[in-house]
Amino acid sequence: MGMVGGGRGAFIGAVHRMAARLDGEIDLVAGCFSSDPAKSKASGADFFLDPARVYASYEEMAKREAALPADQRIDFVSIVTRNNTHFAVAKAFLEAGIHVVCDKPLCFTLKEGRKLRDIVQKTGLVFALTHNYTGYPMVKEAREWVRTGKLGRILKIVVEYPQGYAITALDQKGDGAISNWRMDPSVSGASNCMGDIGTHAHNLARYITGLEIEEICAELSTFIPGRPLDDDGNCLIRFAGGARGILFASQISNGDENNLNIRVYGTKGSLEWHQEDPNELVFKRADAPPVTSRRGNNYLSAAAQGATRTPFAHPEGFIEAFANVYRSAATAIADAVAGRKAPKDGYDFPTVDDGIAGLAFIESAVKSSQAGAKWVKFPKL
Amino acid sequence: MGMVGGGRGAFIGAVHRMAARLDGEIDLVAGCFSSDPAKSKASGADFFLDPARVYASYEEMAKREAALPADQRIDFVSIVTRNNTHFAVAKAFLEAGIHVVCDKPLCFTLKEGRKLRDIVQKTGLVFALTHNYTGYPMVKEAREWVRTGKLGRILKIVVEYPQGYAITALDQKGDGAISNWRMDPSVSGASNCMGDIGTHAHNLARYITGLEIEEICAELSTFIPGRPLDDDGNCLIRFAGGARGILFASQISNGDENNLNIRVYGTKGSLEWHQEDPNELVFKRADAPPVTSRRGNNYLSAAAQGATRTPFAHPEGFIEAFANVYRSAATAIADAVAGRKAPKDGYDFPTVDDGIAGLAFIESAVKSSQAGAKWVKFPKL
Amino acid sequence: MGMVGGGRGAFIGAVHRMAARLDGEIDLVAGCFSSDPAKSKASGADFFLDPARVYASYEEMAKREAALPADQRIDFVSIVTRNNTHFAVAKAFLEAGIHVVCDKPLCFTLKEGRKLRDIVQKTGLVFALTHNYTGYPMVKEAREWVRTGKLGRILKIVVEYPQGYAITALDQKGDGAISNWRMDPSVSGASNCMGDIGTHAHNLARYITGLEIEEICAELSTFIPGRPLDDDGNCLIRFAGGARGILFASQISNGDENNLNIRVYGTKGSLEWHQEDPNELVFKRADAPPVTSRRGNNYLSAAAQGATRTPFAHPEGFIEAFANVYRSAATAIADAVAGRKAPKDGYDFPTVDDGIAGLAFIESAVKSSQAGAKWVKFPKL
Amino acid sequence: MGMVGGGRGAFIGAVHRMAARLDGEIDLVAGCFSSDPAKSKASGADFFLDPARVYASYEEMAKREAALPADQRIDFVSIVTRNNTHFAVAKAFLEAGIHVVCDKPLCFTLKEGRKLRDIVQKTGLVFALTHNYTGYPMVKEAREWVRTGKLGRILKIVVEYPQGYAITALDQKGDGAISNWRMDPSVSGASNCMGDIGTHAHNLARYITGLEIEEICAELSTFIPGRPLDDDGNCLIRFAGGARGILFASQISNGDENNLNIRVYGTKGSLEWHQEDPNELVFKRADAPPVTSRRGNNYLSAAAQGATRTPFAHPEGFIEAFANVYRSAATAIADAVAGRKAPKDGYDFPTVDDGIAGLAFIESAVKSSQAGAKWVKFPKL
Repeated sequence: MGMVGGGRGAFIGAVHRMAARLDGEIDLVAGCFSSDPAKSKASGADFFLDPARVYASYEEMAKREAALPADQRIDFVSIVTRNNTHFAVAKAFLEAGIHVVCDKPLCFTLKEGRKLRDIVQKTGLVFALTHNYTGYPMVKEAREWVRTGKLGRILKIVVEYPQGYAITALDQKGDGAISNWRMDPSVSGASNCMGDIGTHAHNLARYITGLEIEEICAELSTFIPGRPLDDDGNCLIRFAGGARGILFASQISNGDENNLNIRVYGTKGSLEWHQEDPNELVFKRADAPPVTSRRGNNYLSAAAQGATRTPFAHPEGFIEAFANVYRSAATAIADAVAGRKAPKDGYDFPTVDDGIAGLAFIESAVKSSQAGAKWVKFPKL
Repeated sequence: MGMVGGGRGAFIGAVHRMAARLDGEIDLVAGCFSSDPAKSKASGADFFLDPARVYASYEEMAKREAALPADQRIDFVSIVTRNNTHFAVAKAFLEAGIHVVCDKPLCFTLKEGRKLRDIVQKTGLVFALTHNYTGYPMVKEAREWVRTGKLGRILKIVVEYPQGYAITALDQKGDGAISNWRMDPSVSGASNCMGDIGTHAHNLARYITGLEIEEICAELSTFIPGRPLDDDGNCLIRFAGGARGILFASQISNGDENNLNIRVYGTKGSLEWHQEDPNELVFKRADAPPVTSRRGNNYLSAAAQGATRTPFAHPEGFIEAFANVYRSAATAIADAVAGRKAPKDGYDFPTVDDGIAGLAFIESAVKSSQAGAKWVKFPKL
Repeated sequence: MGMVGGGRGAFIGAVHRMAARLDGEIDLVAGCFSSDPAKSKASGADFFLDPARVYASYEEMAKREAALPADQRIDFVSIVTRNNTHFAVAKAFLEAGIHVVCDKPLCFTLKEGRKLRDIVQKTGLVFALTHNYTGYPMVKEAREWVRTGKLGRILKIVVEYPQGYAITALDQKGDGAISNWRMDPSVSGASNCMGDIGTHAHNLARYITGLEIEEICAELSTFIPGRPLDDDGNCLIRFAGGARGILFASQISNGDENNLNIRVYGTKGSLEWHQEDPNELVFKRADAPPVTSRRGNNYLSAAAQGATRTPFAHPEGFIEAFANVYRSAATAIADAVAGRKAPKDGYDFPTVDDGIAGLAFIESAVKSSQAGAKWVKFPKL
Repeated sequence: MGMVGGGRGAFIGAVHRMAARLDGEIDLVAGCFSSDPAKSKASGADFFLDPARVYASYEEMAKREAALPADQRIDFVSIVTRNNTHFAVAKAFLEAGIHVVCDKPLCFTLKEGRKLRDIVQKTGLVFALTHNYTGYPMVKEAREWVRTGKLGRILKIVVEYPQGYAITALDQKGDGAISNWRMDPSVSGASNCMGDIGTHAHNLARYITGLEIEEICAELSTFIPGRPLDDDGNCLIRFAGGARGILFASQISNGDENNLNIRVYGTKGSLEWHQEDPNELVFKRADAPPVTSRRGNNYLSAAAQGATRTPFAHPEGFIEAFANVYRSAATAIADAVAGRKAPKDGYDFPTVDDGIAGLAFIESAVKSSQAGAKWVKFPKL
């Protein structure tokens, strides 16, 4: 694979590389790691790449890689740049005939996202979006529970994503600075907190339950003075089919680390999952004791078992979940490259459509909040 | 003490009696345990009472107890009847000069509550409301943390009260039936779920943080078909001073038992407490590891230590917390009876004013929901 | 009831009184609360007792109470004195025809215990020993699981009782002083730590599994300099029937509070229970997810449901468990007083036989340790 | 690197490859994956290796790799064969001048281990043993706490490694079969359970505390009928310096998965760590609330921070811990290859000396158990 973005010091680029590498099926062989050509070269050297395939711009990279013989050029590109460039970079590679794995959110705006969807559809290429939290085996198990009716009809969803790191910006210390570009509307988009992590929460709920939002009432707040974008948001949600929901995301939840979690309540039972304790999934119902399913066991669904690398209680974590997105996307790409048909049940990785839903969530939340936290209809995707 | 309501088979009456009795300072000596005189008599016999002091009506009880010599009559009455009768019973005893301990919610309506407040103020008698969850030692510790500034300025409050028992009503089995009278608007009031448990969640947040609601946006739902009142509700809250909040309560959260819990996020740190694990209170902040304070230790505040009966890790529970309300109220009543002045810092039990705030919460939530989950202003108390 | 010991400031006496009082069926009406008559009087006044029934010595109390008419005298005495006096006090009351509830350990020595057993058998009176930890509902559930074969054949038992309070004696602060009399061999007996808490661990394992020890290898240690008795002990155990066990108890496990817990591993499944989280009991087996049973639910055994006072997740604690011992003993005493036959399945409270087993455990552990932690046979009880 | 063992279907070989690959600094380029040459070839193809470097025997591999030019041959070999072959394979590569990473236990016997130590010392090559559980960041943090005196003098160590998978062998289903070769004394050595997992528990305690065993009293059991080796073992331990310990390991602890955990109690405080929840480390002391340090935070030691790849609460797991052993060993090997001096504080990976201590533990436990669970002296290493 090749990579755009993710040079020295970039957190998420390093995660993408570890995730891609884990299973021994993907090698990084080319890249444009920075808009600064010198930095790009230096990063390429860090990764032991052939200097000839470390490019000064993504346009050059797309063009020159596409011109290589099929058995030499990259099979796909991984895009880990800032939000406002996803569209242009993805477009360049797709139009050069190269498959794409792209970090979330999909694009800068919903409008842009729809254009990208058109391009993906037109080219017929694989486009995977790294909503990595759905890569956890027990999240896949949760989805199976909903699909197979174990929960009955879904009545209520509570999904949370509290973090606290931004609070350190109050006294200018710690990791609050991490979020700087995320706080710039010209780079990050209409929202910081909803775009960065709220969209993960939304995607998680949508992946597990399959339910689309019908209406949303959102109140976004900026608690850190001087910031142009939100650092906290609380939403009430009406889902299609009558389920009610609460979604909140926050970067000022002092002392929380990366506490994404979800509870889904159904007529026959409920489930609960916490990203910080990802190897467990709890099933609860009113007339029986709670049952805690654990990753790696034979009693789990094929979906959960297939997304696992180590035996039970040899804990898996964030990188392994991320690697599951890569592995599924790589399978799809390998099939495409080899001209194989997709399996009957399809592949299990987030697509451009999931990205569209995510952008719709972000924009609807912002719209509702700007109207004073009034209910707004969710757009047609 | 005397008791009105709480005859054979009534859960909360039994709890009140155990709580009152625990410290050996309160004896049950009189009562009217049912509106059915025969049932009242039978219950009185269960409790080893002098039959002469088991009454056929609360009016009779108030009148005849008040006529007894001061050293023989009850010092106070405990009212554990259904919501729609609290006002009349409390009025009767207060006007007979007898102190009152009353189950929540305070009254049937906010309007009624305000009238009761007038009576309490006019008589100068002690009136305690059994918002028992604030009786837990670690809840008192939490309040001390807020009061002493350990959390800094409060930014966000998330308080939840999910239960799942009503879900069994879907197939007509289990304890769903418990809530029958709670589902009758002529007995329970404008709300079932908000009145029964939402008000506990509100009271808990208010007790710990001291913050009043300014505006509320609530969506109440009835998921169990055929029920006239809500069994679930989600609220967004704007608190005085700028903090934002989420409050939800539910009786259809399948598999949750009595999962009241609260998180309070501040600029300097945050706290988290769970009623199902009441002997612990967690303090979190962005730049230090979480610290779990535990009941019964010397490092706790005087307020928390004073509300404890057993050494650390000899767990205390629901009855002990309930007993703390009784013990504090009994101290106030004993002081009143003896003509002693109240201590400088006052007493620590919920009063008629807390009851008023609770009724305002219930009525505001209902009003918002009936308007389609629009924001409504909180009334002046 | 009457009480011997437990005057002002005595922790366990206060617990006994709360436990006895909780259900409204037992009243404290007489006592000898201290070997110092003035202290005894003062304590009696604290408890609102008739001064005529506050005695200067237990001998006087036994004699004078026995001389009262049957409907006036105490039905039973609760003995909460130091270990070395249990025998004499119990003997006095039993021989006066008064039933006994006694704190553990049963007696000062196994030899003394056997003599006491003879007296109990001869008098035919009720003798209950307050091994209170077996009063927890989920411990009763655990016993039912073993009894009904849910665990299969038991292979291994791990039971722990680590506390850390004695560590503060290292620098002469904190509650280390609590243990002073427990460190005096002439008062406490052959062991401090095994006698105080190890015996609870042993009793818990024995109650749940019904297994007797065959051989024990114990190493007791004294980590706090200058102490004549053990403050820590580790035991390997061979149970009748082939199960293997580990039992340890400690008062120098810095930072542990009252962390009694047990794991029982069987061929069909295993159980785990923690006293600090007493309302849960976990069932585990190799081919299914762990299941967490919770107090107060209909799915529990009659034994567990019958030992409960509040609904699920209205937590019960130490006092309620203690009260279960009192309630069961009181039922037996009431039956005896009324001349009713015992129920077919007997009563569920620890007896003099359990006390004998406890003393045998203590003495065997001491004997093994003194021999250099060699295996010793468990005596015939 | 090259690999010996770990062909198709071998669990631990796959883990070694993922761990080695994770950081992008180690490539698998040669191997002898099975003693069956055809299987070895097939496995090599799975891993995309040059067929010329997939060997039919480890002897051939050592010889031919050593004959390659320095910039082409493997820098080190990873040995993941069965216990009884570790010595011969390691010897072959060391004597061919190739560094070694070897799975535990070090060798088949302590005697063999000492011979291997001599060879390592003579060749001066890097020898790393994959006691992977010490690769977890929070285990490194624990060691720092002991080293810097945060715990004071260590009084007691409790280390456990219960698993339950073998219980399924009772009815011939499930993963019990995994352990087949481990149950063969001619392949596995003197012990199954102690050699497979007990040695991890011992290594963990030794790594964190630095304490060597002085005497051990061990009772090993075989609960699964027909097995020639132990499947469970309980040990009492006397450590140098006076600390007392309990170590147990089990494969018949029905329902436990991979529940390695350790508690270390000291005069100033205690620590607790659980492998199944590896990102947390608890500090407890008698006069302050427990504090839970969490991986990835700035407040941790350099040792813990340096062993981390993702930010806090982006969970890391088993593979990442394993990869830390590889990364440290690779650094040492790279330094050796480049002729750089070792850093002043050395490297942080388990060595042949740790392996010797592990074999001494296994053999001492077996010796004690065979003598009827008597105390035996730990051999000089």
